[in-house]
Amino acid sequence: MPSLQEFIIASVRQAPAVPIELSEPVALDALPTPALTIDLDIFEANLDKMQRHVESHGMGLRSHTKMHKCPIIARRQIEKGALGVCAATVSEAEVMSFNGIEDILITSPVVTRDKIERVVNLAGVSHGIQIVVDHKEGADALDQAASRAGVNLGVIIDLDPGMGRTGIDPKLALALGRHIVDHCSALRFSGLQMYVGNCMHTHGFTKRRDKYCAIMEKGLETRRSFENDGIEVDVFTGGGTGTWDIEPELGALTDIQAGSYVFMDVEYRDIGGQQSEYFDDFEPSLFVLVTAISKPQSRLITVDGGYKSFASDTVPPAFRDIEGVTYHWGGDEHGIIQLDNPSREINLGDKLPMLASHCDPTVNLYDYYFPYRDGVVEEIWPITARGCSQ
Amino acid sequence: MPSLQEFIIASVRQAPAVPIELSEPVALDALPTPALTIDLDIFEANLDKMQRHVESHGMGLRSHTKMHKCPIIARRQIEKGALGVCAATVSEAEVMSFNGIEDILITSPVVTRDKIERVVNLAGVSHGIQIVVDHKEGADALDQAASRAGVNLGVIIDLDPGMGRTGIDPKLALALGRHIVDHCSALRFSGLQMYVGNCMHTHGFTKRRDKYCAIMEKGLETRRSFENDGIEVDVFTGGGTGTWDIEPELGALTDIQAGSYVFMDVEYRDIGGQQSEYFDDFEPSLFVLVTAISKPQSRLITVDGGYKSFASDTVPPAFRDIEGVTYHWGGDEHGIIQLDNPSREINLGDKLPMLASHCDPTVNLYDYYFPYRDGVVEEIWPITARGCSQ
Repeated sequence: MPSLQEFIIASVRQAPAVPIELSEPVALDALPTPALTIDLDIFEANLDKMQRHVESHGMGLRSHTKMHKCPIIARRQIEKGALGVCAATVSEAEVMSFNGIEDILITSPVVTRDKIERVVNLAGVSHGIQIVVDHKEGADALDQAASRAGVNLGVIIDLDPGMGRTGIDPKLALALGRHIVDHCSALRFSGLQMYVGNCMHTHGFTKRRDKYCAIMEKGLETRRSFENDGIEVDVFTGGGTGTWDIEPELGALTDIQAGSYVFMDVEYRDIGGQQSEYFDDFEPSLFVLVTAISKPQSRLITVDGGYKSFASDTVPPAFRDIEGVTYHWGGDEHGIIQLDNPSREINLGDKLPMLASHCDPTVNLYDYYFPYRDGVVEEIWPITARGCSQ
Repeated sequence: MPSLQEFIIASVRQAPAVPIELSEPVALDALPTPALTIDLDIFEANLDKMQRHVESHGMGLRSHTKMHKCPIIARRQIEKGALGVCAATVSEAEVMSFNGIEDILITSPVVTRDKIERVVNLAGVSHGIQIVVDHKEGADALDQAASRAGVNLGVIIDLDPGMGRTGIDPKLALALGRHIVDHCSALRFSGLQMYVGNCMHTHGFTKRRDKYCAIMEKGLETRRSFENDGIEVDVFTGGGTGTWDIEPELGALTDIQAGSYVFMDVEYRDIGGQQSEYFDDFEPSLFVLVTAISKPQSRLITVDGGYKSFASDTVPPAFRDIEGVTYHWGGDEHGIIQLDNPSREINLGDKLPMLASHCDPTVNLYDYYFPYRDGVVEEIWPITARGCSQ
C-alpha cells in the first residue's frame, strides 16, 4: 500500500528504458495497427544533419524530449553530441534523469509545493538539472526549497515572446535577474530562455524569418541589459525546428531546443521551406501504420486510425505514398479516406504508413515505437515518458 | 527476448486491474496536475440512472469501454446490471477479458490475419465474445479462422447509418446475413448493430430526435427483412448517450451502447437537453485538475493543461465552477485563460477542476484515475486499456 509520493515515484521509475529485442525480426506488415513506426535511416540522417548544423555554427543542441518522450532517443542525441535535453514537465525530467541523462532543462515554470519539491529532489541527484522561472514569487519558492534541501539549483529566466503563455515581459526581466542574483542564494542564475512558439509554424520562409528576427530582437535587448548590469548570461536558449536555419544569421542563441526535426509531421511539412513549397529540410521518419478495415461506400475506405491514434489539434494526417485521397476524421478509432483520384488502389487489409498530423501529441498516444530498417523490425522502444504531463 | 506475439500478449496482460489503495488519504489539492479525477457521488448516480432507465424500458445496457478504458468501472457497471460491455478494438477486448469481463462485443470490424486470430483466441477463452462484420470476405475469414480453431464465434452485422465509416449498406445486409447463416458454420449470427454516430451530437433535442428516428427507420426495416426471411435477430444494438431518452419511444434496440453518460463532457453538455439549454440529464463526474502556473500578461493566466491533457478534436475544455473566462489552447502542455470577467479570482498555484472537452480521447491520455469523495482520494484506478487502439 503506497503513499501518493511513493506511487508517483514508482510510476516514473519504471523498468529502465532499453530496447526490447525481438526473438525474431518482424516485417512491418505483421505489426498490429495502428502502430507507431520509425524509419531508422531517415531518423539517423535527421539527427546527424541537425547536430552538424549546430556545430558548424558554434551553437549547442538541447533537444526537446517533450516530442519523443524516449530516453533511448535522448541518449542517441547526446551520443551524437547534443549538450543535453529539455523537458516540458517535471515527470519527463524525472524519467530522463532516472535513465541516466544528466543535463536537463525544464522549460516550463512550476509554482506548487509538490512540484517544487520534486525539482529540488532531482537537482539533488544531478547538478545538470535546471528550470525556468518567470516571476519573483516562483523564484523565491524555489530558492527556499533548494536552500532547505542544501541544493544549488540552476535557473533560467523565461521571456514571453508575446504569446502570453509563459515567461516574463522582457522589460521586467532584469529586475527578476537582479533579485535572483542578489537574494536567492540557493539558485544559480545561468541565463535566458525565449522560445518563440508563435512563429515556429508561420507559413512561408521569408515571413517566418522576419517575424522571428523581430521578436528575438527583444530577447537580444534583454540579454544586453543583463550584461550591461554585470550579470553574465551563459545560456540563451530557445528556437526550434521551424527556425533552425534562421537562427545562425541572427546569432542570438547559445543553444537550440528543436525537437520535431527528428520525426517531422504534416504541420511542419506545410510551413514551406527556404527554396521549396514543402519544408523538407528534414524528411519525415515517423509513420503511423494503419489498416484499411471497411468500405461502406464506393468512394470511401475506412482506416483504423482516428483521434486516439493521431493528434487532432491541427491538420489531419497524410499518407506517405498515396496521393489523390483525402483523410477525414472518423471519430476516436477511425479515419475515412475519400478516394478522389487515388494514385494506387487501396484494398481491405492493406497496411498503410501515414505521416503524423502533429508529432508531439501523436507520440504521446502510444506506448511503443517500432523502429525498422529495410522494412524489418528487430526491436521495440518503450516511450517511457508517455503521459508524463505532470 | 520475446517474439512479437509474446510481447503483444504481455502488453495487454499487465497486472490485474484493481484499485491501488493509498496508505493515507490525500486531498484533491495535493495531486500532481494535470490529474484525471472522478467525483464518485456523481459517477455512481450516473451509473444508477442509466441502469434504472434501460431496465424500466425493457432494454439492456452494453456500456462502451472505449470511453473509460477501465475494467474496474466495467465491473461496477456489470454489478449494477449491465448485460456486458462493448470494446472498439481487439486489445480493449483482451484487457477486459483478462480482467474477468465475459460478455464483450467488439464494435468495429477486423480484416487482417493477426487481428482475426486474436479475436478467435479470445472467443476460445470466453463464449461471450462477439464481433461485428460488415462484408462477406470479412465474415468468411473469421469463419475459416474460427473453424480451424474449433471455436464458435458470435457475430453481429454492422449497418452503416449513412456515415460512411463502418457497416454495410442496410439494403445489402440481408444477403450478408443469409450468407453467414447458410455458409459460415463456425459463426453464430446473433443480430444487428446500428450505431448512429452521426446524430449523437446533433444540437437541439427535437432535431436530434427527428434525425435519429429517420435513420433508425432503416435499421428497423432491415431487422424486419431478416425476420421475414426467417433469420432470428436476438440482438439489435446501438444508441448512445445523446439518444438515451429518444430510443425508448422508438423501441428499436434491444440494448444500448452508451459510454459517455458515466463521465460527460463539454461536447455533450452543449448539445442541449429535452427541457434545458444544456444537456444535463447526467452530471459531469470527470474533472481534469489543472494548476495556474504563469501570468505573463494582466488579463491572462496560464494553466498546465493543453493538447496532451485534453482531447482537442472538438470544443475546448471548460472550468467546473468559474465563469466569465475563456480557455484558449496554448500548445501541448498549456492552456491560456483569458480573464474576461471572472466569477472568482485565480491565483498562481491554484488547482482548478475542468470538464473534459471530449471524454473518450481525454481519458486515453492518462494512466490513472483519482476517484474522490468529499474532496479526498483514497485509491487510484489504473486506466488499464489506455492506448489499446489496436
